[in-house]
Amino acid sequence: MEDHSNRLAALRGRVRGQPLYVSALANIRYLTGFTGSAGHLLVTADSATLFTDSRYSAQAREQVRCADVRISRGDARPELAAAATRLRLKRLRFEANRLDYETYAYLGAELPRCRLMPVRSVVEKLRQIKSPSEIAAIRASLALNSAAFEEVFGSLDSGWSEAHVAAELEFAMRRRGAQGAAFPTIVASGEHGARPHAEPRDLRIEPRALVVVDQGAILEGYCSDMTRMVAVGDPGAAQKALVRAVLEAQAAAIDAIRPGVECRTVDGRARQVLKKTTVAGFRLDELFVHSTGHGLGLEIHEGPRIAPEQRQRLQPGMVVTIEPGVYLEGVAGVRIEDVVAITESGCDVLTSTPRELRLL
Amino acid sequence: MEDHSNRLAALRGRVRGQPLYVSALANIRYLTGFTGSAGHLLVTADSATLFTDSRYSAQAREQVRCADVRISRGDARPELAAAATRLRLKRLRFEANRLDYETYAYLGAELPRCRLMPVRSVVEKLRQIKSPSEIAAIRASLALNSAAFEEVFGSLDSGWSEAHVAAELEFAMRRRGAQGAAFPTIVASGEHGARPHAEPRDLRIEPRALVVVDQGAILEGYCSDMTRMVAVGDPGAAQKALVRAVLEAQAAAIDAIRPGVECRTVDGRARQVLKKTTVAGFRLDELFVHSTGHGLGLEIHEGPRIAPEQRQRLQPGMVVTIEPGVYLEGVAGVRIEDVVAITESGCDVLTSTPRELRLL
Repeated sequence: MEDHSNRLAALRGRVRGQPLYVSALANIRYLTGFTGSAGHLLVTADSATLFTDSRYSAQAREQVRCADVRISRGDARPELAAAATRLRLKRLRFEANRLDYETYAYLGAELPRCRLMPVRSVVEKLRQIKSPSEIAAIRASLALNSAAFEEVFGSLDSGWSEAHVAAELEFAMRRRGAQGAAFPTIVASGEHGARPHAEPRDLRIEPRALVVVDQGAILEGYCSDMTRMVAVGDPGAAQKALVRAVLEAQAAAIDAIRPGVECRTVDGRARQVLKKTTVAGFRLDELFVHSTGHGLGLEIHEGPRIAPEQRQRLQPGMVVTIEPGVYLEGVAGVRIEDVVAITESGCDVLTSTPRELRLL
Repeated sequence: MEDHSNRLAALRGRVRGQPLYVSALANIRYLTGFTGSAGHLLVTADSATLFTDSRYSAQAREQVRCADVRISRGDARPELAAAATRLRLKRLRFEANRLDYETYAYLGAELPRCRLMPVRSVVEKLRQIKSPSEIAAIRASLALNSAAFEEVFGSLDSGWSEAHVAAELEFAMRRRGAQGAAFPTIVASGEHGARPHAEPRDLRIEPRALVVVDQGAILEGYCSDMTRMVAVGDPGAAQKALVRAVLEAQAAAIDAIRPGVECRTVDGRARQVLKKTTVAGFRLDELFVHSTGHGLGLEIHEGPRIAPEQRQRLQPGMVVTIEPGVYLEGVAGVRIEDVVAITESGCDVLTSTPRELRLL
């Protein structure tokens, strides 16, 4: 499915053939297919070279078709610097938010005649627009993730701890072919759910407690991400009202998604709905402490950001999460998250699991 | 077990009270106990402040006792810059190999009267010397990891694929209380084992093939790391000779470990042993394409590096892997890895699983 030559051509178009040093591994994977854990890619108008170390010699030769491969023993940066010197580069763009200061300073010292120029999100901008095969890959990752959810919550034993449920979910993902979880699975019940990034505890899930389940898989490199609310027994009217408010906020945000709409508008729709409801003296939008969503693909967090003040406009091919949440400290948390692809005429919700509170 | 005040005091001693910006999350965890996925720590002679975002407000207040906590909506870097301005810092050290260029440039622009000074491995050097309670934590993580190995290989079905075995291993870790795997579990059989960082395939493990199993867990934040060789049925004399050579190389390296010895000496011992054996026209040391080992603790790769040219001397409290390997492309790979703590008089092997080839 990957068409690396076209991607490299598109990248060269974006930087008008100027030399670019790609240091982010997800960007290297996108451009070359290389999946190793260490590498540096140098792209010029008429060359592309991957520098990696001897742990990856066979793998790089097999995976990388559209770039030369240079293998070094240990740190590959000296080879990168030597190549830049041989090419007599006068300017070299680098990924400002993806490169550590030390490597930047090293290249500065090794390449005294070359001006290092920080750029931001050059490859990431290309990656924001997914091809049909990438959208299919994300959809497959989401389907696997949903199947794991169904399997575990279809047979949940009420004596299980949060940590046990998280372990079962990740095992179910892997048994179905996932390379692993896209992030640490969250299973957070009762007041623990009020922490958006809660770590699962070795504590039994209590009856009638709301449980936030936030899970994602990696399948063929592509991430999924879904949050659902679960409860073992009826959690009561007040908690169900919280869930309804978040569902309504999510629906309003999704309803606003179409090409040309600014990300902040989508974010604002969710907040508007939450503003209408008050719980324990708080307006719910005051308890919505994070942004509404993020792009995803080869990485779990990509652009665009669906957040306040984000004026970026949605375009067909973008794939984002929509995940409003409210967090009432000491009481409970609620978050509901789907993945949505922007189409020519509107959007397509890629997540198949029903959104409603799941009572076990 | 964590004594964060003492750690902060030791850090202030190392930098002689000069202000330091700690950006690496593992370093922040070591110094404050904070386990969130986003944060910045500013340490001065008489203050320590953690800057994080509103997703972590309750968690940070609960976990962090020895530092102030500032919560911001979204990106916490403006708060960090504002605090540095209020403190009228003239100089601010930062972690050169742990900070992205963009944040460095941002702080440079925000703090025009403050000189940003790159430093390297300041907190990491402290972390290299583990306390008795940290060594106990690593030992517990290793014991859990070994128990997972025993459970899975005690009941291995010969029809299982590499990916299935990897999934079972990670599930066994989590069921025993691990927060997750310390790195993607490697189960690599036959010629796939010749890739040191092989990704498990959805292929059945063939009888008589050598299988490299490299697995580690995270327990209470501390990593384990172990590699063992397994085969379903006798892999034959030639392959068993490879395993024997690597076992001998590993034993020679471990035998050299004591305080005061240079890391390169330990690495050299393993290479010397491998040099004596030739397979298919290659000397085995030519097929040993990586270094002999690395420190581990809160991160899976820490200092010191047990590698050629590393003149650093071992000290009591250091904990390192010893993992020589040989990789014969198209044929097989062999690696055997234990974790060793350096003691006052020599060393202590913390891994309990027998090292020999496990025949199933």
